[in-house]
This record gives sequence, C-alpha cells and structure tokens, in this order.
Amino acid sequence: MYSVDLNSDIGEGFGAYTMGDDNEILKYITAAQVACGWHAGDPMIMDKVVRTAAERGVAVGAHPSFPDLMGFGRRKMNISFEEAKNYVKYQVGALSAFTKTYGVKIHHLAPHGAMGNMCQDDRELARAICEAVYDIDPEIIIYYCAGAVLGEEAEKMGLRTACEIFADRAYEDDLSLRSRKLPGAMITDEEESIRRCIRMVKEGKVTSYSGKELDIKGDTLCVHGDGPKAIAFVKRIREEFEKEGIEIRTFR
Amino acid sequence: MYSVDLNSDIGEGFGAYTMGDDNEILKYITAAQVACGWHAGDPMIMDKVVRTAAERGVAVGAHPSFPDLMGFGRRKMNISFEEAKNYVKYQVGALSAFTKTYGVKIHHLAPHGAMGNMCQDDRELARAICEAVYDIDPEIIIYYCAGAVLGEEAEKMGLRTACEIFADRAYEDDLSLRSRKLPGAMITDEEESIRRCIRMVKEGKVTSYSGKELDIKGDTLCVHGDGPKAIAFVKRIREEFEKEGIEIRTFR
Amino acid sequence: MYSVDLNSDIGEGFGAYTMGDDNEILKYITAAQVACGWHAGDPMIMDKVVRTAAERGVAVGAHPSFPDLMGFGRRKMNISFEEAKNYVKYQVGALSAFTKTYGVKIHHLAPHGAMGNMCQDDRELARAICEAVYDIDPEIIIYYCAGAVLGEEAEKMGLRTACEIFADRAYEDDLSLRSRKLPGAMITDEEESIRRCIRMVKEGKVTSYSGKELDIKGDTLCVHGDGPKAIAFVKRIREEFEKEGIEIRTFR
Amino acid sequence: MYSVDLNSDIGEGFGAYTMGDDNEILKYITAAQVACGWHAGDPMIMDKVVRTAAERGVAVGAHPSFPDLMGFGRRKMNISFEEAKNYVKYQVGALSAFTKTYGVKIHHLAPHGAMGNMCQDDRELARAICEAVYDIDPEIIIYYCAGAVLGEEAEKMGLRTACEIFADRAYEDDLSLRSRKLPGAMITDEEESIRRCIRMVKEGKVTSYSGKELDIKGDTLCVHGDGPKAIAFVKRIREEFEKEGIEIRTFR
Repeated sequence: MYSVDLNSDIGEGFGAYTMGDDNEILKYITAAQVACGWHAGDPMIMDKVVRTAAERGVAVGAHPSFPDLMGFGRRKMNISFEEAKNYVKYQVGALSAFTKTYGVKIHHLAPHGAMGNMCQDDRELARAICEAVYDIDPEIIIYYCAGAVLGEEAEKMGLRTACEIFADRAYEDDLSLRSRKLPGAMITDEEESIRRCIRMVKEGKVTSYSGKELDIKGDTLCVHGDGPKAIAFVKRIREEFEKEGIEIRTFR
Repeated sequence: MYSVDLNSDIGEGFGAYTMGDDNEILKYITAAQVACGWHAGDPMIMDKVVRTAAERGVAVGAHPSFPDLMGFGRRKMNISFEEAKNYVKYQVGALSAFTKTYGVKIHHLAPHGAMGNMCQDDRELARAICEAVYDIDPEIIIYYCAGAVLGEEAEKMGLRTACEIFADRAYEDDLSLRSRKLPGAMITDEEESIRRCIRMVKEGKVTSYSGKELDIKGDTLCVHGDGPKAIAFVKRIREEFEKEGIEIRTFR
Repeated sequence: MYSVDLNSDIGEGFGAYTMGDDNEILKYITAAQVACGWHAGDPMIMDKVVRTAAERGVAVGAHPSFPDLMGFGRRKMNISFEEAKNYVKYQVGALSAFTKTYGVKIHHLAPHGAMGNMCQDDRELARAICEAVYDIDPEIIIYYCAGAVLGEEAEKMGLRTACEIFADRAYEDDLSLRSRKLPGAMITDEEESIRRCIRMVKEGKVTSYSGKELDIKGDTLCVHGDGPKAIAFVKRIREEFEKEGIEIRTFR
Repeated sequence: MYSVDLNSDIGEGFGAYTMGDDNEILKYITAAQVACGWHAGDPMIMDKVVRTAAERGVAVGAHPSFPDLMGFGRRKMNISFEEAKNYVKYQVGALSAFTKTYGVKIHHLAPHGAMGNMCQDDRELARAICEAVYDIDPEIIIYYCAGAVLGEEAEKMGLRTACEIFADRAYEDDLSLRSRKLPGAMITDEEESIRRCIRMVKEGKVTSYSGKELDIKGDTLCVHGDGPKAIAFVKRIREEFEKEGIEIRTFR
C-alpha cells in the first residue's frame, strides 16, 4: 500500500494582508506548516489557521524563517549558529501556544524560504535548526527537501524526517530543485507533473533535468493554495492518487 | 512564618542593546519575568536569561507587551480583546521554548508597561490576558499590581494570583500607584521604603499618600537591576527581611 | 467653474503583499497619498508608485501613520507631541527621497487610519503633524476630513488646507463621519452617493444622518482602488462630474 | 597645510536604549553619520542628534543599513540592486527631514556595518548606494573605507569621496581592515596608533600587518564615543594633530 502526505505553507498573510486561501487549501491537505510571524503570519492568523487545521485533522507544522518580513524571508541572511537555533526556538514556541489552545501538538517543521534553501547544503544552519527542535520536542518531524543536508543532520540527531517533493519543479542531478532563473525549472504540463508525482511516490524515482534517473523519497508532496488554479490542481492530484491506490494521509 | 517573593523584570535588552544587569539581579531574586521580544528582549537574550534563572532556581515568568519596541511597550494601544489574547499567547509560547530547553516551566505572568498599567481598570484587557494563560497553562500564576482588576479577573477564572507591591512607590487610596507626574510619587527615603515593605508583608497594611490605612497583600515585591544603587538596595532589603524573619522564596 | 480633486491612498502593499490596484487607480485620480512604511508601504513600492504618479501628473502626498504595521495603523496609540512630530517628519522625509528622484515635490499630506481619525478632535496631535510639515516644507497642503481640528490647526499655522469629503459615508451633525459600527454609516446607493458628491462640491452642502443641512467644503474627494467595483465607481464619478461641469484637477 | 576630518557614527540608540554618548562625542568631531532607523536610531534620536550637530557645526551624514534592527545591521543580507538603492534612498530621505528642520544639508553618507563591509568588494551594492545618492543629491560625499570599491564606483559616477581611516585597526596588503577574528587586528598601543594616524594623514602611507608600505588617503578619521576611554582618546588625538600642524576640519 502506497501513501503520501500533502503539505502546504499556510498562514502567510500578515495583519490586513492576505496570501493564498488558507481555509480552502486546508480542505485538501494532510499537513500544514504555519508561518510564525517572522516572514509572514501574526498571532491572529496563527490562531485562526491552527484552529481550522485542528478541527479538520490536518497536522500542524512550524514554518520558521529569518527575521525578514519586508523580504518575505526570501533573502539569505548570514546569522550565527546560536542565532539560528534560538530564532527557530522562538518561532516554534510561539506556534505551540496555539497548538496547545486547540489540543494538538506540533507535528513537523519545515524551514521557510531562504532558510529552507540554505538547508540544502549549509550543515551548520541545518544542525542549528535540528538542535532547536531537539531541545523543544524531539517528536517533531523534520520536513526536508530531497537532497538537503537538513535531512541528514536531522537523522544523525535521531529526529524523524520526511522527504518533501514538488509536483511542478525540475530536479538537478544532485536532487536540488532547478533554479527558477534557468529554463526548464518549472514542470508546466499538468499531466507530466502528475505522472512524475505518482512515480516519485510509488517507485521512488525521478528523472532529472539532464535526464538521469535519480532515487527520491516521496514522503510528502508540497502543494499550493494561491488561486483557483492551484486549488484545482490539488483536487486533481488527490483524484489521481486515489485511482493509483496511493493513500493520502499525514506522515507518521 | 512570613514570606515574600522578590521579582524583577529581566531580559529587557535587545540585539546589541543592554538594559540593566540581568546576571547580577538574578543572584538576589526568586522570580524573574522575561521580556518576550515585543517591547524588549530577543531570542538570544531570552535563551541566556532563562538558562541563568533555571540554573539558579529563579522562577521564570512571562512579561508580554503591546507590539511597541520603539516605545518600550510604554504607550497605550487600543487593541481588541482577540488581539490582546493572541498577542499574549504568542509571547508566552515563544518564552516556553526556552523554559522547555532548560527543563523548567513558566511560573508566572506579569503584563509589561502600558499593558500592565491598563490592567489596573480595563477588565476586557485583563480578561483577554487571563484567557490566554488559561488556554496555554492554567498553572501559570498571574502577578497583578495591588488594586488591579487583573487580579479579580484571574481569580474569577480560577487562576492563581500573587499581589505585587513596590518598595519605592506611593499608593493612592484605591491602591493604584501614584502617578510619577505628581509630587510624592516616589518613596525616596530608603529606611521608610524598607519599613513600608516589611509592614506590607507582615501586616498586610500600607499608608496611602493621602494618609489612609489600606489593606494590601504583599505576595511579591518588585525590585530593579538597573545600576549599582538598585542592586545595593536589593541586597539591603534581603538583609532586613531576614532580620524580620521574612523568608524570601518564590511564590507558590 | 466648479472643480474637485480626486484623491486615493496608494502604495499600501508591503513586501510580498499587495493591497488594491495602484496602477489602475492612478489612471483616474489627481492626488495620491503614499504609505510611508509605518502602516504599509516599503521603499520598493514607494519608488514604483511615486514614479507612476509622477509620470501621469498625479500629485504625490504623504500618508504617515503610527508605527503599527501589524495593525495597518488602524489602532489608536498614545504617543507624545514630540513623538508624533518626529514620526511624521521621518515618514515625509523618507517619501521625499522618491519625489526628488522623479522630479516632483510632495504636494500634500493626509494622516492615515487611527492617526487620521484622532485628528478629528485631538488638537495636540493635529498641531504636532502641522509643525512637522511646517518645519520640512510649508508648501505642503494638509488634507483634512471635514470637521477635523486638523484643518483649523493647519490654518492657524499658515499652512494651506484642502477639505476631504467621502462619497460613500454618512455625516453626523458635527461633520464627523458616522461610525461604521452604527447603522446607516455607509451610503450604499450609488446614485445617492453621486448626487451627494455633486452637491458637496457645487453647493457646499450635505445632509447629515439626522437630517440637518450642513456646510461642507468639497475640495477633494476620496476614492478607492480596491477591486473592480471601486474602479468602476471612480470612472462613473468622473463621467458624472464632467456632465455637471465639475472639472477634475489637483487641488492647488 | 595638512587637514583631517574626524567622524563618528552617532544616534545609534533606539527607543529606550542608548549606545555611546552622542552629546559628548559631538564636542570633538567634525562629521557625524547618523543612524536612520534600520539598524539603530529612531525619529526622536535623529531629531536630537541632528539638532546638536547643526548647533555645533558638525557636518551631518547618513548612515544607512540593511533592515536588521535585531542584528544591529551587522549581518550580511542578500538583497537585490533595486532593493539596496531604494533602501538607501528611504533612509537618506528620512534623515533629510531633520537636516531641513535645522537648516543644514546632508553632507556625506557612510554605509553601516555589513552593508559597509560588503562595499569593500561588492561593486553592485556599491553602485546601488551611489545611484541612490546621485538621484537624491549628488553633492553628498561618499565616505568609503580605504581600498573599498565603493570609492571607485562613487568616483566613476562623478560623486565626491572621502577616504576613511581607522586609528585602532591593522590593514591587510589590499588596504582592507584585518579581521577582528585574527590576531593583530587591533592596534592596542595608543602611541603607535597616533603615530600611524599622523603618518596616514601627512604622508599618505601606512604599514600593513604583513609589513608592506601602502599608499592610503587619510581624508577622514573614524573615532568612537562609547565610553570615557574612547572620548579621552579623541581628545588626545586632537591635541597631537594640533601639535603636528594638522588642522581638524570637516572634509569639503
């Protein structure tokens, strides 16, 4: 029996601003990483999305970031190991107030934006994040992008991990995502995108941009909730997965 | 047997800025409310002061504020009930990451600055704070200033409370602190200040500015760590309390 | 010959967030007050909207706020006279970098949100804002809401003023806007709304919610750019004004 | 006749926090770069230090930074050319509100912390800063550290420049400051430090850490105002310069 988790970043509005349709995407996913106020999100939004996720049985994760609201956490920052560790702790802790309120636990953590990208090969940053999680709650699962040292560091520390895959992105030979600045970065054909997802989940294989066959662990698939097209794609993916006998359920 | 708790606001630096001498004051107090990043404090400072407090057996409390770093949380803000509740949750949650790290629990909460002052008579704000605490951990003790509705609202909700007294401030007839803008607001004579503290703790009485005898509960005495004079006063108070048979210990 | 200025708040996105369609509304208005980064807006957005406004001959104004990004500047804050004055200066100065870049001057200033609302009757705040403007550039015109002490204080100081009216809001007998919390606050009928505008501009009269005939100066009409309906209304208003012989031009 | 400018970073407190003694150092220097609120500084502080500088004839400069209050602007951030340009404009503009208030002009600009360090070899960032200055006021002088590409880019653009030297720092062979992480980074001997300054100003020469004789332009010497020792050193340097016939005056 095959299974996959469907995850999405949520709660990425701020104050009067909205970003995506949290309520809608929360109908279709099994895990949601919640912005913790540093690149997006605020206590009002965190309260609302954690409550909705909890009511619908969607696993709540933390989505910590560099302190960069103006840049939506998308810009590299050169912070120290201790800063990274304490910044992640602060954000996970803040989120835990809302999970406690609604009687759930923080299920997973996925670093956001530039912090997430840097975890592809920055072992020090990856370890700082893992130590933060270890200190607070070693049951929290680390969601890492295929190929990222974040997964390795988490496993070294004895943390559980889930490998995150993307439906709409091409992979390089080292499993890193092909940069959006390069041609062919996006898989624009929906059918191809779905076939690739199914293969990643069932066979653990993906064809890289250069044509190599790569091993990949498709534990959790990242989907988006920004706009009707994105939501339609999520519904479609769910249907296709069901036809293929792939159960959609939270990663455990 | 008489006893009193000695508390202080700590961790009120920010980034490259320091405020008071946290390490020094943590040698003399039994409870410390830690700034949570909204009026002061940041994850590096929170980590450091929580670790030190935990090592020395000083009870760690939360010191949440309005979102006003530029004003050090000292300016009234007109936020809604839900905002107050979620803002306090966020800050208490953030602090909990550090208490978990060092194996202690959040012992108490005292709202900072303008948020604290408004709790003197703003029942809605007081209730919002208490509901936040109740949702996260009903064991957290509410530290309220003598006369504040915060104490009443906390007790209505079944939360435990400690009444906070001040060594260097005059009281009005309703137990509110005499405004610093008015003459006679500060008790500048050290001997008088100490005699007043001892009487508040042992007899539960204080003489108001206008000369009335007031009932007051002296559960916890607020002291400061900003400068050598403040530290010297704390040492002196400890000695005098010991002579008077007043045990200095964390409020339980 | 009658004339009116059409103004709108613009540049109210932040970082990755958008708010309204600045580019679209800038096609129809004659004056735009630009968010300066404290309730909304950032340097990238300020640069873009000032450039577009300058290219199209739309007068650029400053739209300063309390420091409250999380609350979109909509919450009252109890800041001092000096704080208000310096906060407004900072924001106007920041905007001036972009007007200089595109060869235009700051034409007017309209305080945002809670700061604007408080200028209805808070003379100290109103004077602080006017002194800030006076110190930087006494040519800047103060846009004030009908009935606000801001207009009086500006005129006392010798600043030029323009009285701002609203198409979709009911007025109380003191010319203040009827609170949105009360029934009848909004003029929902489009025909009525347009008739009221024309009358305010041509006759200088408006009927209050209670039915009184009030004198009002319709120098500048506030319109919105959030959504296709709002834009359609602005186009409609322009057409009706032209039919009525009301010239639409920047207030001088 | 030899001359040198004495400059210092000032206004680096924030809200309730102080940093250095602005009032004291402003007695001894001829140019002061003022923090603009992004790594330090706020409108109240900016107002105060610009007023004091203007009263004493100290030239006021801008000291812009990355948006990183928590890190005091000391951490590299990977921002785009357009972001850097607009961020600098915003900060220079904000400062200009206070220089206008006190009847002076912005005399120079020196990027702060990590932004300054990156200007040693990041031509794109350096050019972004210079374009910002060029757009706002091409009379503003760029203060650059010896060896920095910032100086070259400014000169290419036709901006005036002043080369900044340091009394207490060792130089590498490429004129960059020896990293504080390495031994020998600081010149701790006061006599040696003064002799080096005099030689840099009069002969335009400095001996590098490795022993090489380097050409250096000593237009402006950076001094500090943090603590009595720093102030004493500034007084001493002034005396020694006078003995050597080096006039201390603002760079023109």
